Amino acid sequence: MAEVLLKDSERIDELQRNGYRIIQDPNYFCFGMDAVLLTVFAKLKKGENVLDMGTGTGVIPILLAAKTQAGHFTGLEIQAACADMACRSVRMNDLEDRIDIVCGDIRKAAELFGRDAFDAVTCNPPYMTELHGIKNPEEPKAIARHEILCTLEDVVRNAASVLKVSGRLYMVHKPQRLSEIMVMMHDNGLEPKRLRMVHPEPDKAPSMILIEGVKGGRPHLTIEAPLVIYDSDRKYTKEVAEIYEPA
Amino acid sequence: MAEVLLKDSERIDELQRNGYRIIQDPNYFCFGMDAVLLTVFAKLKKGENVLDMGTGTGVIPILLAAKTQAGHFTGLEIQAACADMACRSVRMNDLEDRIDIVCGDIRKAAELFGRDAFDAVTCNPPYMTELHGIKNPEEPKAIARHEILCTLEDVVRNAASVLKVSGRLYMVHKPQRLSEIMVMMHDNGLEPKRLRMVHPEPDKAPSMILIEGVKGGRPHLTIEAPLVIYDSDRKYTKEVAEIYEPA
Repeated sequence: MAEVLLKDSERIDELQRNGYRIIQDPNYFCFGMDAVLLTVFAKLKKGENVLDMGTGTGVIPILLAAKTQAGHFTGLEIQAACADMACRSVRMNDLEDRIDIVCGDIRKAAELFGRDAFDAVTCNPPYMTELHGIKNPEEPKAIARHEILCTLEDVVRNAASVLKVSGRLYMVHKPQRLSEIMVMMHDNGLEPKRLRMVHPEPDKAPSMILIEGVKGGRPHLTIEAPLVIYDSDRKYTKEVAEIYEPA
Repeated sequence: MAEVLLKDSERIDELQRNGYRIIQDPNYFCFGMDAVLLTVFAKLKKGENVLDMGTGTGVIPILLAAKTQAGHFTGLEIQAACADMACRSVRMNDLEDRIDIVCGDIRKAAELFGRDAFDAVTCNPPYMTELHGIKNPEEPKAIARHEILCTLEDVVRNAASVLKVSGRLYMVHKPQRLSEIMVMMHDNGLEPKRLRMVHPEPDKAPSMILIEGVKGGRPHLTIEAPLVIYDSDRKYTKEVAEIYEPA
């Protein structure tokens, strides 16, 4: 495992997969369960070429490199300091031949990578539209959480543009945006084909949704069995425990 | 309770609500749990004017008359024999002053009732698009189950047309059509605002969806806690037991 330099505010966390580790900085957005669950929901085949939009720490391509046989990942990140941190995580895990981190704008994805370039796109985008109450819209966490530099429509339109025909967009988002997501996917030629709701407990409303849209797909949605985080004893369910502590 | 004439093939079923009963004919489409759950999902206020599109036996307006304080219901049904049967059920329950059954086409709803005429529309539409394999498309059950005389888009467009601004469409449908429903609602000015999945068992994929669209609403979907039919012992869950056997 290559040695990398850490800044004072940075720390290294274990990813519990292949011995991979990741650099995070509490001053920036740290990844959450949503990113981890997206890597479980995304189905990647051997040799596929994958783009992660708004990669942040690079956690999604690093976890997917551990879990799948996809050939190559590109992590696109607009914040230079995040992209630099993700680059060092890639080096630290000796993943330079499978993962490239690119500092750039999602809205320029087709210019950067060309049209029809990817088999799959993953994205854990900013969830919130509301910009009121944000003191400093240049603050890194605000950029990661709110639609300041990139809206839901930017994600969907640009994903559609860089995906090959039959390519898939995998996204995690909030339930309250589901209808907008479906309309935007449809309007951009990405048909919603698979949906899974994530519930904090069995009888509770979902707190996240995982969705797959297929470029040029025909309408027919499969809604999967619920993914439940905690059982009634407030312990991880079997499924989630196996995601975090694989045998 | 008024006396009504029954045809040879017809039977009378108890509705377990207000002592109401309903006439059904096994040669026609008999209502299922989906219609009953729709009447639980729909929220009607005192005095509201409600249209049920494709009312069949009239079960939805009859149950809603028992459960809510809505002022008036119109059940629209294209099959004359069904409309006649529904009329007799209305009379049998002494509901003539709250429920009208009209024999007519959903696609003519605005001509029949005028635009902006209703506070709410309910609909348990035909679920299936596939017309292949249907031996006789004039068969009453085929018309109730398949999009022969009325497509999903006919339902949504005509509901939008007869609803007042802020009026609600309540619909039950199959999960695989959810994305189409959301796109069609959006394109017709009905914003999906509330969604509930119906699961046969706690860990199973949903078998039905219940959705509310609001005319002129702003995007923000509430996905509710799952509605589960059977618990792990294959008994009705508490919620469903209370729907079928109210205290």
